[in-house]
Amino acid sequence: MAGSTYGTSFSITTWGESHGPAIGAVIDGCPSGLPLSEEDIQEFLDRRKPGQSKYTTARSESDQAQILSGVFNGQTTGTPISIIIHNQDQRSRDYGKIKDCYRPGHADYTFDAKYGIRDYRGGGRSSGRETIGRVAAGAIASKLLRRLGIKVLAYTKAIGNIIIPEAEYNYGCIYDNPLYMPNNSYAKEAGDYLEDCVKNQDSSGGVIECILEGMPAGIGEPVFHKLDAKLSQALMSIGAVKGVEIGDGFQVSHTKGSENNDSFYMDNGKICKRTNHSGGVLGGLSDGSRIVLRAAIKPTPSISQEQDTVDAYGGETRIAITGRHDPVIVPRAVVVVEAMAAITAVDLLLANMGAKLEYLEKVYNRN
Amino acid sequence: MAGSTYGTSFSITTWGESHGPAIGAVIDGCPSGLPLSEEDIQEFLDRRKPGQSKYTTARSESDQAQILSGVFNGQTTGTPISIIIHNQDQRSRDYGKIKDCYRPGHADYTFDAKYGIRDYRGGGRSSGRETIGRVAAGAIASKLLRRLGIKVLAYTKAIGNIIIPEAEYNYGCIYDNPLYMPNNSYAKEAGDYLEDCVKNQDSSGGVIECILEGMPAGIGEPVFHKLDAKLSQALMSIGAVKGVEIGDGFQVSHTKGSENNDSFYMDNGKICKRTNHSGGVLGGLSDGSRIVLRAAIKPTPSISQEQDTVDAYGGETRIAITGRHDPVIVPRAVVVVEAMAAITAVDLLLANMGAKLEYLEKVYNRN
Amino acid sequence: MAGSTYGTSFSITTWGESHGPAIGAVIDGCPSGLPLSEEDIQEFLDRRKPGQSKYTTARSESDQAQILSGVFNGQTTGTPISIIIHNQDQRSRDYGKIKDCYRPGHADYTFDAKYGIRDYRGGGRSSGRETIGRVAAGAIASKLLRRLGIKVLAYTKAIGNIIIPEAEYNYGCIYDNPLYMPNNSYAKEAGDYLEDCVKNQDSSGGVIECILEGMPAGIGEPVFHKLDAKLSQALMSIGAVKGVEIGDGFQVSHTKGSENNDSFYMDNGKICKRTNHSGGVLGGLSDGSRIVLRAAIKPTPSISQEQDTVDAYGGETRIAITGRHDPVIVPRAVVVVEAMAAITAVDLLLANMGAKLEYLEKVYNRN
Amino acid sequence: MAGSTYGTSFSITTWGESHGPAIGAVIDGCPSGLPLSEEDIQEFLDRRKPGQSKYTTARSESDQAQILSGVFNGQTTGTPISIIIHNQDQRSRDYGKIKDCYRPGHADYTFDAKYGIRDYRGGGRSSGRETIGRVAAGAIASKLLRRLGIKVLAYTKAIGNIIIPEAEYNYGCIYDNPLYMPNNSYAKEAGDYLEDCVKNQDSSGGVIECILEGMPAGIGEPVFHKLDAKLSQALMSIGAVKGVEIGDGFQVSHTKGSENNDSFYMDNGKICKRTNHSGGVLGGLSDGSRIVLRAAIKPTPSISQEQDTVDAYGGETRIAITGRHDPVIVPRAVVVVEAMAAITAVDLLLANMGAKLEYLEKVYNRN
Repeated sequence: MAGSTYGTSFSITTWGESHGPAIGAVIDGCPSGLPLSEEDIQEFLDRRKPGQSKYTTARSESDQAQILSGVFNGQTTGTPISIIIHNQDQRSRDYGKIKDCYRPGHADYTFDAKYGIRDYRGGGRSSGRETIGRVAAGAIASKLLRRLGIKVLAYTKAIGNIIIPEAEYNYGCIYDNPLYMPNNSYAKEAGDYLEDCVKNQDSSGGVIECILEGMPAGIGEPVFHKLDAKLSQALMSIGAVKGVEIGDGFQVSHTKGSENNDSFYMDNGKICKRTNHSGGVLGGLSDGSRIVLRAAIKPTPSISQEQDTVDAYGGETRIAITGRHDPVIVPRAVVVVEAMAAITAVDLLLANMGAKLEYLEKVYNRN
Repeated sequence: MAGSTYGTSFSITTWGESHGPAIGAVIDGCPSGLPLSEEDIQEFLDRRKPGQSKYTTARSESDQAQILSGVFNGQTTGTPISIIIHNQDQRSRDYGKIKDCYRPGHADYTFDAKYGIRDYRGGGRSSGRETIGRVAAGAIASKLLRRLGIKVLAYTKAIGNIIIPEAEYNYGCIYDNPLYMPNNSYAKEAGDYLEDCVKNQDSSGGVIECILEGMPAGIGEPVFHKLDAKLSQALMSIGAVKGVEIGDGFQVSHTKGSENNDSFYMDNGKICKRTNHSGGVLGGLSDGSRIVLRAAIKPTPSISQEQDTVDAYGGETRIAITGRHDPVIVPRAVVVVEAMAAITAVDLLLANMGAKLEYLEKVYNRN
Repeated sequence: MAGSTYGTSFSITTWGESHGPAIGAVIDGCPSGLPLSEEDIQEFLDRRKPGQSKYTTARSESDQAQILSGVFNGQTTGTPISIIIHNQDQRSRDYGKIKDCYRPGHADYTFDAKYGIRDYRGGGRSSGRETIGRVAAGAIASKLLRRLGIKVLAYTKAIGNIIIPEAEYNYGCIYDNPLYMPNNSYAKEAGDYLEDCVKNQDSSGGVIECILEGMPAGIGEPVFHKLDAKLSQALMSIGAVKGVEIGDGFQVSHTKGSENNDSFYMDNGKICKRTNHSGGVLGGLSDGSRIVLRAAIKPTPSISQEQDTVDAYGGETRIAITGRHDPVIVPRAVVVVEAMAAITAVDLLLANMGAKLEYLEKVYNRN
Repeated sequence: MAGSTYGTSFSITTWGESHGPAIGAVIDGCPSGLPLSEEDIQEFLDRRKPGQSKYTTARSESDQAQILSGVFNGQTTGTPISIIIHNQDQRSRDYGKIKDCYRPGHADYTFDAKYGIRDYRGGGRSSGRETIGRVAAGAIASKLLRRLGIKVLAYTKAIGNIIIPEAEYNYGCIYDNPLYMPNNSYAKEAGDYLEDCVKNQDSSGGVIECILEGMPAGIGEPVFHKLDAKLSQALMSIGAVKGVEIGDGFQVSHTKGSENNDSFYMDNGKICKRTNHSGGVLGGLSDGSRIVLRAAIKPTPSISQEQDTVDAYGGETRIAITGRHDPVIVPRAVVVVEAMAAITAVDLLLANMGAKLEYLEKVYNRN
């Protein structure tokens, strides 16, 4: 199976290693007629770029996206959109222990176990830089969704134990703080906590939440390609994610049916729900309410504390990860979560185009 | 996209409605040479069958599996294995309000929104009976895994607030209590809680945990088809699941890197980990440790309390779900989780057969 | 890879062995709202049924199709349509030499080479009976196409050297002769030729032609999933097919550009072509003209003449295929070709629903 | 459906327009441990490069391949191999009539019909330059096949009516003549014929033959992904191909079973066939003999004779294709056919790795 492709109708293939000449993505199946520029993509890439604050690394990554195909006269043509981002930071260097040692919490050992060879420079294929291609594709998916009246928004819900309750959300301030939190005072508190982590040569985990507004009801393919199932694959495929929830998520395990069921009512001829414990998904199909999902992000595994490990030759050793590393992955992963949710939504909106004979008759002008 | 198929190399297609003439699955890509009988499948089906205890419904479902193809002289032949289970309970009846009303917490509304038509009898395609096909396929996958020295085991970790701590697990007693809990006294407590739920015309959620032992390191396909990503899709595709975790799951959001990283050490020439916060997956590939996943199961949406809802004609109404319904989905879903995990593991083990040129040379006897 | 599934949006999975308990197909992705009955399917199955004339075997195959799912109140519901056909001819018998010998021209040896085990009864999975599932799916696809104003028609163009020139086609008489030829006097001549073949314990090949009328322009997915590429896969996947052509086919190898190019002209505001050497496909997309394809069918490999062969134990031997066998596969394969063309057309019409942003805006009522 | 991806286990995605900044391919699923360099790829690209003889255009295409990912220390790593070829010939120019007119025999009209917009510069996505990505991928597939002892070879069998009979093949001289014909005197004759075509502002079709030697028996996936079915899709997906044959191909339509069946015999413990009418494929699986396929190539549609056509505004007009164009596509398509056959063979060899439980036990060291 070719593991680097996601999506059936709207499909994205990413390629590239952290310290290779370039990294990129091919997006196939994007409908023609969507206005698209490199700025649209750059805007998204800039949201995951490091060095934006003291909580993200100051490495010299500029990550300029170039569109190589699939766009003509400012519009998508329906053919594959190839996007390339040249790696800036490719100078030959001493990779020291990373070359032969397996960093705890990283994929060094498992890549070696699978392939018997790995590009150890900067994590190679398992580097967070792989997500650049996803974000580029997500920019296109998001633009398409907006044309259909659908909005995707991701933000940081928690850093360590600093968790913003829903009642204190202020979506308007998400881009006002470097942690992309919907509440500036919680963001301040989280910032203090992260500084402590840095001081202790340690790192923190967190939670990202993502909402989709305006999805028509009925999107998702029953049984194995349910909307929530595909969103789970999409989010869990992001390196640092260890858990995924829809709606009330794990909370449902200790509620009762009478609490968890969302009652329907009519509002101006439209079917609505009084609550949204389901997170906008019933039976794997969107139910017309806001879709709410959450991803648990593990602490950055690269820490400068010395840790026990082994090398590729069967010896035990200790390793301290040098260089500057983010004390938290969360803020840079926010746009990755948003991108994966958008890509999934577009793919399933396209799949749904064949749900009813009526749709075919409409598009092919028969009836 | 055809939503009823899962898996690329080892592929399962389920079909059938709750009250149609039959329900079934086609399993394609099963390697030849695996001994297989209808008893192997029946053993799994019997684990999800209702009426096994007072916490599961006493409907007259016998669910006898018949193998229609793909097995010859007691062995799989490599061709598609078609399994059929005739529905017993098809008599014509009055479906009453279910026909036109949208039951809260069910997929009635969303199926209507998607397709404009639905088989309302017993939930049709969105019924829990759809999972029968998955369980049948899971029986085959499990048998194949055992041949490779890999064991999959699922059990109930929590019912409502009755949560068994890992330290009190006793895997030996899972099949000794009707809730499939690895601790009989917690199971007793959970049983009492469920009786209360029944008395109050209510239902409860819970948590299922699943472990895979013996997976070689390196299984999973990097980037989008990571082992944990596919397991998440697999589990979230089960109707009642609202959250999925790997290893420490949401717990990682408030731990630190120094706590969450698992140190490597050597044990008799084998690379091992001192802890298993990762749940056996690093960078989306198995790391040789026990794989641990959890699924949050929502409370049964069918409750006999009266609830507000709407009908297909835009009217508001109230509905009480009559008939006997399980006060908890969890025990019957245990084997479904186990089945989906096994199917995913086999699919990725097959995909991994092409990871190294060395494997091809071995199979095709070159070098 | 699961080899028994074809199609991405409109997908068909066939299963079953010649002498197993049943044979069938699961069709997933059929749009909801299509009126469908067992009679619709039976009508197609009856066209491939043996014993219709002296050129096809008189075995007692009745092949009654039963719909097990996906249809409710006479309409498709959008969920998988499972169709089963019980095998009549399953009695235990002496399979004699077939059990261990490799019949020339058959797949006995190659199945053994691949799987190490095969159901030798009646050819098992490689039997022509496998096409029953395809024909059932083709009946559904054809009905859907007719709703969109598209018609698929297949017929016998040649039996041995009796080839009907296009100028002598009379589509009206195709069902008037047992060979499905569009000219009764050629059919008579072909019949005489086949009687000679029978007398000489021999068999004949032939050519099937298939046309699609009414396909809108632009159907097919550029590059690898071109309309003609998918039609070629579809036709070549039928056991006895050894060659496939579109339009002028192999003829183009000795024509010139000035002859082969089809000039465009306007007819009542519609773009038309003066000739149709392309067979209705340009650059892999339908060009609005009639789509014309042809498949070369090999002579029935089962002949009663004695032939040299080997057995599974490495011994040389001779075999004469006993029992009644068609002296020609062509007439029974006509409806299989039609079915595969229809399935392919529907799959690509569905894929094309996402070609333009305008289509999405139309279906989702935005703009 | 994303039409620009081919292959399930060994997958290739091509992207790029004729006159965009670059063109390329992403190859995913290549096993690790294969030695690979840019020279390996360049060697294949050079075989399709124009300007090699007077029968191919002298445009300044240099087509230098650069590997951007998936290769480390001279070996494949198992991660996606991204290959880019920068387009040299991108200068802005006057595209004249091509911009709005539909060239006969080209995909201009059908792309406009599908997408409503097209990159008209040099044919955009439907240009023959798209095959560069396929050839690059084919170079990798061929190298992998050679490691397994399998050889793929394509050559020109016919140009117009100059057809080389099999008895006069001399594989040793294929690269000695600019038409890649396995007989220099036929090549000389074909050259004279092509000069006539040029003089008459016309073009010629031809036939390419391709053989695969050394394929183990049993490769191909029964039913829809048969070896011959996938090869047909692969070859027919090449722009100019209008027909595909396996073994005796259309010839079988007028032979008899007694002639067409290949008898088996034993040779030193190995099962062999006395003839090879089947072209190395029985029941869709390789039978251990040489695999033989042929593709019919249409005459270059770009001719300088004036032709009738229409424009995008519904007007009738005439067009003469200016610029230098190959009078025949065949020689440059030879390596494309070889590449597509190699890619297909690798994909199915990988799929076959899961055919038997025995193979899994061998790779995972269980038994």
